[in-house]
Amino acid sequence: MLLDASASGLFPIAPTPFTPDGKIDDGSLDTLIARYLAAGATGVTVLGIMGEAPKLEPEESLAITARFIAGFGRLPVIVGVSAPGLAAMRWLARAAMDKGAAGVMIAPPPALRTDDQITGYYRQAIEAIGSDIPFVIQDYPLTLTVQMTPKVIRQIVEENPSCVMLKHEDWPGLEKITALRAFQKEGSMRPISILTGNGGLFLDFEMERGADGAMTGYAFPEMLGDVVRLQKAGERDKAHDLFDAHLPLMRYEQQQGVGLAVRKYVMMKRGFIASDAQRKPGSALSATARAEVDYLLARLARHDPRALV
Amino acid sequence: MLLDASASGLFPIAPTPFTPDGKIDDGSLDTLIARYLAAGATGVTVLGIMGEAPKLEPEESLAITARFIAGFGRLPVIVGVSAPGLAAMRWLARAAMDKGAAGVMIAPPPALRTDDQITGYYRQAIEAIGSDIPFVIQDYPLTLTVQMTPKVIRQIVEENPSCVMLKHEDWPGLEKITALRAFQKEGSMRPISILTGNGGLFLDFEMERGADGAMTGYAFPEMLGDVVRLQKAGERDKAHDLFDAHLPLMRYEQQQGVGLAVRKYVMMKRGFIASDAQRKPGSALSATARAEVDYLLARLARHDPRALV
Amino acid sequence: MLLDASASGLFPIAPTPFTPDGKIDDGSLDTLIARYLAAGATGVTVLGIMGEAPKLEPEESLAITARFIAGFGRLPVIVGVSAPGLAAMRWLARAAMDKGAAGVMIAPPPALRTDDQITGYYRQAIEAIGSDIPFVIQDYPLTLTVQMTPKVIRQIVEENPSCVMLKHEDWPGLEKITALRAFQKEGSMRPISILTGNGGLFLDFEMERGADGAMTGYAFPEMLGDVVRLQKAGERDKAHDLFDAHLPLMRYEQQQGVGLAVRKYVMMKRGFIASDAQRKPGSALSATARAEVDYLLARLARHDPRALV
Amino acid sequence: MLLDASASGLFPIAPTPFTPDGKIDDGSLDTLIARYLAAGATGVTVLGIMGEAPKLEPEESLAITARFIAGFGRLPVIVGVSAPGLAAMRWLARAAMDKGAAGVMIAPPPALRTDDQITGYYRQAIEAIGSDIPFVIQDYPLTLTVQMTPKVIRQIVEENPSCVMLKHEDWPGLEKITALRAFQKEGSMRPISILTGNGGLFLDFEMERGADGAMTGYAFPEMLGDVVRLQKAGERDKAHDLFDAHLPLMRYEQQQGVGLAVRKYVMMKRGFIASDAQRKPGSALSATARAEVDYLLARLARHDPRALV
Repeated sequence: MLLDASASGLFPIAPTPFTPDGKIDDGSLDTLIARYLAAGATGVTVLGIMGEAPKLEPEESLAITARFIAGFGRLPVIVGVSAPGLAAMRWLARAAMDKGAAGVMIAPPPALRTDDQITGYYRQAIEAIGSDIPFVIQDYPLTLTVQMTPKVIRQIVEENPSCVMLKHEDWPGLEKITALRAFQKEGSMRPISILTGNGGLFLDFEMERGADGAMTGYAFPEMLGDVVRLQKAGERDKAHDLFDAHLPLMRYEQQQGVGLAVRKYVMMKRGFIASDAQRKPGSALSATARAEVDYLLARLARHDPRALV
Repeated sequence: MLLDASASGLFPIAPTPFTPDGKIDDGSLDTLIARYLAAGATGVTVLGIMGEAPKLEPEESLAITARFIAGFGRLPVIVGVSAPGLAAMRWLARAAMDKGAAGVMIAPPPALRTDDQITGYYRQAIEAIGSDIPFVIQDYPLTLTVQMTPKVIRQIVEENPSCVMLKHEDWPGLEKITALRAFQKEGSMRPISILTGNGGLFLDFEMERGADGAMTGYAFPEMLGDVVRLQKAGERDKAHDLFDAHLPLMRYEQQQGVGLAVRKYVMMKRGFIASDAQRKPGSALSATARAEVDYLLARLARHDPRALV
Repeated sequence: MLLDASASGLFPIAPTPFTPDGKIDDGSLDTLIARYLAAGATGVTVLGIMGEAPKLEPEESLAITARFIAGFGRLPVIVGVSAPGLAAMRWLARAAMDKGAAGVMIAPPPALRTDDQITGYYRQAIEAIGSDIPFVIQDYPLTLTVQMTPKVIRQIVEENPSCVMLKHEDWPGLEKITALRAFQKEGSMRPISILTGNGGLFLDFEMERGADGAMTGYAFPEMLGDVVRLQKAGERDKAHDLFDAHLPLMRYEQQQGVGLAVRKYVMMKRGFIASDAQRKPGSALSATARAEVDYLLARLARHDPRALV
Repeated sequence: MLLDASASGLFPIAPTPFTPDGKIDDGSLDTLIARYLAAGATGVTVLGIMGEAPKLEPEESLAITARFIAGFGRLPVIVGVSAPGLAAMRWLARAAMDKGAAGVMIAPPPALRTDDQITGYYRQAIEAIGSDIPFVIQDYPLTLTVQMTPKVIRQIVEENPSCVMLKHEDWPGLEKITALRAFQKEGSMRPISILTGNGGLFLDFEMERGADGAMTGYAFPEMLGDVVRLQKAGERDKAHDLFDAHLPLMRYEQQQGVGLAVRKYVMMKRGFIASDAQRKPGSALSATARAEVDYLLARLARHDPRALV
């Protein structure tokens, strides 16, 4: 089933579990899938920046993709296919779709600057992978250094009918969601799904601004799913109460460079994955940092028993 | 009295209050000074990035500096003197010291890349302003794009005896504090004061890693001062409790580009300044954003009555 | 007399001559002016990037400006007013115009990325300095990192009636001149003057693409003027012959970072200025580099006797 | 035979010839190899930035590599293996060496800033590919934005015994060659081969500063080889005469972004390759640009009959 603009809910950004000696850990992959489904995931995104995708060999990328597709059944699996060259992007996109992926996610290469360069890049990328593959725009200026205005996103959406979703992680970005939803309302842009990233750090208000859900990798996907559901149910205060309880840890996890180490450490403690190993080059947590995370988990557990680990 | 390496506590980064038509609001400056002193400030930093320094004419910069010096009495006033040219830096540094400033703060220009370029720049800057002026290194890669390793900071400290403080706002930066304190312990770097910025977002743990205090502009300086004091008193849990209550608002205020608008809006509501106007070019808060801040303030007031506004 | 869109010919980018101890050398300023006029300059630009503008104190900037205005008589003097803040930009622009400048030049600050940010910046800058001052867009992505498409330049021109000229130094940039002239031809952009920079490295073809002249600082302004005149007179081969003879030296002078040292060294040897000193921080030529320049001058002298120094 | 520090002469950076419909053109590959050998190439570098490497699928990359190895016989073939992830780098490096490559070339990823990040990256890369593979550092700040000081290069050389060569294309870079050769002379760095890139724009003086040869892709490799030989033979004036005759065209070819289109166009006219097609995304030459190149070729032919095409 192909991804479309009605996608919503919780799409975790999946990390890639490795054994301490750097092999892909299939058992942990299966555990991870089970835990995501139990957390209420409505889909999943693999091979993203936080999935250590550039450290994988092509066949490994495909094998991981296939395992998630098998595990998620009828739920959509989105595959990150960003690559420095369009040949590699095309190869991975076609291969992933052949395996049953629901769509692909494309980030702009860091060198892009002008509006025309950005929209031109998406035209060329879609020409390369084929216009039959639903795709997601990844808008992540903090890491990618590419800045897309709402008008540029609208132009990409309008020029490429296969664009069905925005992974929104501009920072700050609340007004951008409002602007895009206003475009839809005035009829100048067709509806798309907007799922938000940025480690979840603004998910509380992003939902109020019109986001459809979360697409990020915070180590408590259950909380992300709960906030999305509570906000959709109009339970604003409850959503913020839960969100605020997690914010100290979320903030700690959202540190550039060291964030994935924090995330994998917590996921390991929670039993999602067997080891927090990263493939080289990867950052490691100091003993002090691990103790800080343990302290944050203990404090969180007073509000959310799922943090008792 | 000159700034030295024993500085600690709370040095707010002062915004510059303007009237709605863009004039400097002297009355608000006096109120701001009074509120900072009441909040337990042990010093203050003026003409920083969040002080809209580049929008001020030279005489205005000096007038603001003089007013803070008069208001802070024997407490140290640090003056941001970063400038694209060393002539302008020297002029402002000498003029500020003549007025009674305790020291100056220097950020590296964004074009610097290699270790040698960075250390060379500080040598030239100190040669320009004179080695008799105590100075603070501003280490803020998120905004300035210049990355200084602990070794580079050590070299600047060792080569320039007038360096007495680091304004630490690397992100992530906890391990950097630990590394610098280890240099001191092993005797390879003389002691310096480390005050932390980054909107306060990691102040809870920065104090535990060895920071001497806070130098940032969050709209509740009282909280920053409280966390510094609680941590120094060994009241770890209390420090985190207070910090966590403020984190949702702090996080909202710490958005690049729009952060100053949030900060001034809250400070206006709290009576620190009469208007939240920024000089052009400045960002404004949408009605939705103001309502979000109001909501965060109301939630915060349940834990900290100072948020009742 | 104010600058307008009919400007053409040779506008040298003037260096600022210093004495070896860092003072402004007024005698050399007068010599420089005389040599520029003898070289056929139809105007001049002061306080540009290569004029070491950020190293000057405000009064020095104005004094230099006034001296050029006095020396150039009825010929237009353009003043670089780029500054990190609009207050400083406004102050210098108004002061320079009061002294008799013909217009100002504004470069975009390096942080600008999207088309809207760039056009927005020029709107704010013109609002700050006043719409009565003719201004020049400086388009120099290699140094400024800001990329303006022809459409963005057109938008700035159309939104700001006081925009009369483009200092074109995109690299590569030949197609940009062609695109802008095509806009004029089709009536979608009013005519502007296009003078080209980039050290002159493509002046030969820039003139053929539709440029009106040169605005750069190569140490042989006579050659720049000659090439402009020869191309306008339809003497294509002669223009290229002269240009090619200078290209080895021009290329050497156009090295980022060290270029100004080469330029001042040659100008000193040619008697344009008394010393090749730069204000700190400045790069110096090694003995080997000076010998290389001497060798290039000796080779050039076989084709152009003006290189006999 | 493995690459070692005695490599010198002419290593062309080979473009990848495509048919107009985007397939690899094996016939042109063979012609290209024959022409390079006839031009006096002492080796060749494939899959570089100008070889459109990111547009190739893995098997294509290997096939091209194998064809060059077969064609060059005992002469060394260097393979560009820069990749966003170390897994892909390792795979290509090992596979290329298995096919008979002499060594690999590694460029630093653009995100690297501090000296420690750069030296750390090379340690990790060599650990990934294995210390038995001779490697070349590519130092190209203009495109890669990574700045390596001579000290950083020395550290990489000293820490990694398998480092045998620097592809020098810093800009400006003459003093860097001098500094590195001084390190060797004083015994603080073991000898390495230095071949220079940057389109050849400073080859004349680079040879005088101590370079061992040229590694760049200018469409007249014969000229590069001649300049290298003439300078080694002490024929300085003759070397510069030939170089200067080519400089107008070299300069035109060295335009960022459009340079490869110029190079392939000239190589097509010279019969090195059958088509100047690039794989998408690629830039094309306008009719005006082609006419400009034709004009430059006609002018060059007056001095160098090899330009008669």
